[in-house]
Amino acid sequence: MNSSYPSTLLENAVNQFARLPGIGRKTALRLVLFLLKQETNNVDDFTEAINKLKREVKYCRHCHNISDTEVCDICSNPERDKSTICVVENIRDVMAIENTTQFKGLYHVLGGIISPIDGIGPSDIEIESLVTRVQTESVKEVIMALSATMEGDTTNFYIYRKLQPYNLKLSIIARGVSIGDEIEYTDEVTLGRSILNRTPFDESYKLTSK
Amino acid sequence: MNSSYPSTLLENAVNQFARLPGIGRKTALRLVLFLLKQETNNVDDFTEAINKLKREVKYCRHCHNISDTEVCDICSNPERDKSTICVVENIRDVMAIENTTQFKGLYHVLGGIISPIDGIGPSDIEIESLVTRVQTESVKEVIMALSATMEGDTTNFYIYRKLQPYNLKLSIIARGVSIGDEIEYTDEVTLGRSILNRTPFDESYKLTSK
Repeated sequence: MNSSYPSTLLENAVNQFARLPGIGRKTALRLVLFLLKQETNNVDDFTEAINKLKREVKYCRHCHNISDTEVCDICSNPERDKSTICVVENIRDVMAIENTTQFKGLYHVLGGIISPIDGIGPSDIEIESLVTRVQTESVKEVIMALSATMEGDTTNFYIYRKLQPYNLKLSIIARGVSIGDEIEYTDEVTLGRSILNRTPFDESYKLTSK
Repeated sequence: MNSSYPSTLLENAVNQFARLPGIGRKTALRLVLFLLKQETNNVDDFTEAINKLKREVKYCRHCHNISDTEVCDICSNPERDKSTICVVENIRDVMAIENTTQFKGLYHVLGGIISPIDGIGPSDIEIESLVTRVQTESVKEVIMALSATMEGDTTNFYIYRKLQPYNLKLSIIARGVSIGDEIEYTDEVTLGRSILNRTPFDESYKLTSK
């Protein structure tokens, strides 16, 4: 045996765990040995949950958010404002925005971001379906909530051009100095934008005065 | 829906991952979404490797190391010195010592360490089988290689008392300042022991001069 693993079964399991993002071989071994120490039915629960998710998960046919049903809980909620769509890259962004409890509209999950380096073009993500929603639903505003990266800006601009022909309010989430950040340590681009996009004093306190 | 997860299938999978040591809910979500993006057969390989390990793994009947066969590769290797047994807590310790390539004897994996706080007594770990090996095999030396903790010391002492009646050399791996460590920053107990257990100058360079 060439490797330092005393068992090929162990090595295979470690290899599988080590493929996960941010998990090195040492951590993988620790996780595998932890699972090995658990009762068989607990290990079954673990693998079952993953298999079930992979096989049975659905994506909402309106917003493409992950869902247990054909239409997700947000899209089927009658209290949500159907005239506003917030465009995000992935479902983690939906969860992050939902956690703020500040947004009452619907989402549109692109499932990625335009990134020529990674070979992801506009047709690889849910842009066409967004245009269709704008054409067929009573959408009044589309809020772009993508990451402040070059890829995010490219995608923003592409979608902006696609949606321009329609009678819509198109907006981008505010970029500025994070709450709690010190001005001194804020990067120049963010600080510059935060001055250009300054908000009236009373508007700025809307969120905290609620 | 009360939780912030858009799908109970997703939530279940995240819960399972979050039970692993050192994996918080945020990391769990990242890992689950990574798996969700993979091809179905890759996800199957992942869960299959874990299930197979749990169901088919064997423990060597001599040393209790993890193994694909009834007797592990180390115990069945004719080149290993069968007169020396190194006692370790778990299979990760075996791997760590094997990686040094400094030990040519056999191992004995206790599968734990005496720890009254965790309810682990001498009968919960492989101490009786160690005594049996000493009685039935031609063992000349037993090297204790347990962690330098209170539990390790307790286990060392318990095994020392159990093996004392037999005509054996009993030793403990050297405690001292780590190679590369600065004296200034070494804790007092380690530094104190390293002075008490000092080695002759020429012996100390055995390892590096090889």
